[in-house]
Amino acid sequence: MSDANTTLRELKERMAAFVAEREWQQFHSPKNLSMSIAIEAAELMEHLQWLTVEESKNLPPDALADIGEELADIVIYALSLSNALDLDLSETILAKMDKNIRKYPKEKVRGKSHKYTYYQTDRTKDKG
Amino acid sequence: MSDANTTLRELKERMAAFVAEREWQQFHSPKNLSMSIAIEAAELMEHLQWLTVEESKNLPPDALADIGEELADIVIYALSLSNALDLDLSETILAKMDKNIRKYPKEKVRGKSHKYTYYQTDRTKDKG
Amino acid sequence: MSDANTTLRELKERMAAFVAEREWQQFHSPKNLSMSIAIEAAELMEHLQWLTVEESKNLPPDALADIGEELADIVIYALSLSNALDLDLSETILAKMDKNIRKYPKEKVRGKSHKYTYYQTDRTKDKG
Amino acid sequence: MSDANTTLRELKERMAAFVAEREWQQFHSPKNLSMSIAIEAAELMEHLQWLTVEESKNLPPDALADIGEELADIVIYALSLSNALDLDLSETILAKMDKNIRKYPKEKVRGKSHKYTYYQTDRTKDKG
Repeated sequence: MSDANTTLRELKERMAAFVAEREWQQFHSPKNLSMSIAIEAAELMEHLQWLTVEESKNLPPDALADIGEELADIVIYALSLSNALDLDLSETILAKMDKNIRKYPKEKVRGKSHKYTYYQTDRTKDKG
Repeated sequence: MSDANTTLRELKERMAAFVAEREWQQFHSPKNLSMSIAIEAAELMEHLQWLTVEESKNLPPDALADIGEELADIVIYALSLSNALDLDLSETILAKMDKNIRKYPKEKVRGKSHKYTYYQTDRTKDKG
Repeated sequence: MSDANTTLRELKERMAAFVAEREWQQFHSPKNLSMSIAIEAAELMEHLQWLTVEESKNLPPDALADIGEELADIVIYALSLSNALDLDLSETILAKMDKNIRKYPKEKVRGKSHKYTYYQTDRTKDKG
Repeated sequence: MSDANTTLRELKERMAAFVAEREWQQFHSPKNLSMSIAIEAAELMEHLQWLTVEESKNLPPDALADIGEELADIVIYALSLSNALDLDLSETILAKMDKNIRKYPKEKVRGKSHKYTYYQTDRTKDKG
């Protein structure tokens, strides 16, 4: 199986079976799963924390393998959360991508760092 | 399009096109993307931060919509990172799921909170 | 030494000496330190991830010791960041506390969960 | 008031009063506060996410002011958590600093990136 022939539904179903066989639905609440995703995201960052941005573009094979596993953990919990919320993940992602396409018109932001757009939009927000 | 007929490759390709059209590959380094995922994970948590675990299982529709968007953002950046790393995400996820199946044998952990297994394995680790 | 007689300056100076003796100022950039704080925050969450909110109010002594260490790590990196930014942390904290006092008038928010105030203010923000 | 003459106890007492006047102790459980710290850490990262490590060492004044506020929020929640846990924060920090001094002997790690020491110790841990 590879990205070319694996649907989101297949991955979600495998994850749902894993959770159900362990009777872990009770622990996989949205609140707990949001923490799990954040924890896995931090484990991913741990591998990149002391590298420069450039160094992070040229990772040695063992770091790459570790990073792949952390990324998998993040998506695994994301699948479990979309199961818990009964959410069609593909549809939600595609809707958000369309929103981003409108929010960041390519002719306007091309080659400009997000920090540029960030600081622009940021200034208009109420800073809590 | 729905989870039933959307492959990881399709989502990754759409994300790659979005990034390339904006010439944002330069910013989408593994280091930066790991931060982006963690930031989106925190935005997800923001919606669940003051709820009890039980309350988070019964979310009102508008919270559900917001949470879906944050979850989409997390996966969108995960797709971009797997593009940047030239990683087959499905394969990596399935390998990690297999590892978890072996790590948490269902007859041993059934109905037991992860915190149980966490505290067991945790005790054997060097606490940094 | 205890909270009653330890100033922020003493803690900042100890941390500055620790970093300087190792010639680690080069790594303790604001970007890297922001990642370090987030990573330590996730390690703190790891101890609380599968507990209910109520359970987290009654922690066993060994969990309490672990949690104290993670909390210390968070503040240690916060001290290092305030050194790197040449920031008076007490002054910044007190200014932020005053802002919060005005933002959340006690007669208005008393006994109401932040989620209430969160959802109020949240609705008025542009949802990115 | 400044870092030179502000003790941890003074800051903790101010925060305890802020929380008590709003009857927010019920929400300030260790679980919820660990999420709050992680959320504020992510808001800090948001300002640094697209910068290079070097750029983050030379921040414009308005970014510096925003970053100071986010750092204050992190420490504010850390103070509230140490109140909720009835923890002497200074003592805990100093004990952790001593542990770090022994863990990273200066003659061994001087000028070496943490990633070096990280990858060394990391290899000996069970990769979950």
